[in-house]
Amino acid sequence: MLSKSEIKLITSLKQKKYRLQHQLFAAEGKKIILELLKSKLQLHQLFTTTLEFDVPDVLQTIITPKELNRISFLKTPNTALAVFKIPKPQPIDFSKLIVALDDVRDPGNLGTIIRLCDWFGVTDLVCNLETVECYNPKVIQATMGSITRVNVSYLNLESFLSSNKASQVFGAFMDGENMFEINLPSSGILVLGNEANGISKEVASQITQRISIPRFGELQATESLNVANAAAILLSEFKRRTATET
Amino acid sequence: MLSKSEIKLITSLKQKKYRLQHQLFAAEGKKIILELLKSKLQLHQLFTTTLEFDVPDVLQTIITPKELNRISFLKTPNTALAVFKIPKPQPIDFSKLIVALDDVRDPGNLGTIIRLCDWFGVTDLVCNLETVECYNPKVIQATMGSITRVNVSYLNLESFLSSNKASQVFGAFMDGENMFEINLPSSGILVLGNEANGISKEVASQITQRISIPRFGELQATESLNVANAAAILLSEFKRRTATET
Repeated sequence: MLSKSEIKLITSLKQKKYRLQHQLFAAEGKKIILELLKSKLQLHQLFTTTLEFDVPDVLQTIITPKELNRISFLKTPNTALAVFKIPKPQPIDFSKLIVALDDVRDPGNLGTIIRLCDWFGVTDLVCNLETVECYNPKVIQATMGSITRVNVSYLNLESFLSSNKASQVFGAFMDGENMFEINLPSSGILVLGNEANGISKEVASQITQRISIPRFGELQATESLNVANAAAILLSEFKRRTATET
Repeated sequence: MLSKSEIKLITSLKQKKYRLQHQLFAAEGKKIILELLKSKLQLHQLFTTTLEFDVPDVLQTIITPKELNRISFLKTPNTALAVFKIPKPQPIDFSKLIVALDDVRDPGNLGTIIRLCDWFGVTDLVCNLETVECYNPKVIQATMGSITRVNVSYLNLESFLSSNKASQVFGAFMDGENMFEINLPSSGILVLGNEANGISKEVASQITQRISIPRFGELQATESLNVANAAAILLSEFKRRTATET
């Protein structure tokens, strides 16, 4: 049975303002919830229409499918919704490759990039303050559980880059140097920009190496690659170098 | 002014059945329409709320935003919708790398893969009959105009592969050989499977080389990569080899 205040709290988590205020976020679907439960995340409360989770009774509320419908963020609600505490960001490890996002707005893109970071062993993702928040329900669904293995920090990206003079800063541009023809180290920062406008001028001024993914089509007419696809290709190439050159 | 029969025809194009029956498809938004108009595609009729297209009067109908709303497939309609004739598939060029899809169901994934083929100079994309149809409005929007530069053929994929003994057939699997450690030729067929289930048994039996994208995360916990991201990484690596080994 769901109380009115629970419904109000959970549905409020659709908005960044309330997620930050309560320091809570929601995840839906058995598969993702099981992944999150396996991690260090702290469960606040689990709402389920079936009894299939191994969590203490006090943290588990059995609800009806109709109740789930009322709190779900999905068009077709699953069988469970879990509310977790937002973890504190961890210190950033500068000895490894870091991915930085400058104004990525689409939750699906951010979720996919988090999943890619996880795949390629990138543990730190830094985002400028305008990038979509990683505890947005759509991001959480798109990460498929990878959110638990990637440390996401929100910060002023320009200041972050300018204060880290030790790291080489790569930026993905349409007119950068061919990524296959330059040295790609095992540490450094790789910046990816906004879906429509790319990397902002302010952030671009902090970039030490502009790189691009070569286009092979004869007509050279494809306008650009989606930011998540660009991340996929660039991360694969960075990691190939580390793997083959050591 | 839109006639009732025009409204009926256009809205019917949301369904594959009617697209095939009329051999027509719709595209929305000035940017994509301009790309399609530049191509060999034959315009059937353009519906626009503003006069900004250089097409013969007889092919252009000025409509009101309200009328556009009635025929649009988008939540937030743009300023124009164009209906084009579906082109006849061209013969497949076996001298180049071909991408094959086995049951890709998500229109966004197919659109992104078409855009990637265009970027990497893959001119032939073959799809099994269950793969989402490429003239689906959501696919058209996701291709960003690349649909005009990629020849998409729908066919029985198992028969297609078994009858082409000359080509090496690569298939993306979770447990295939590390793509960085094997020979990747400039021609051949690269098969990608369904979002949830991968490549089917029937199609897998025709694959000569199972390949995979190495995972670098220490925990090795990421379940899989999205099919469009996998396509991005694999195509980039195939093309890198062709570029650096010739």
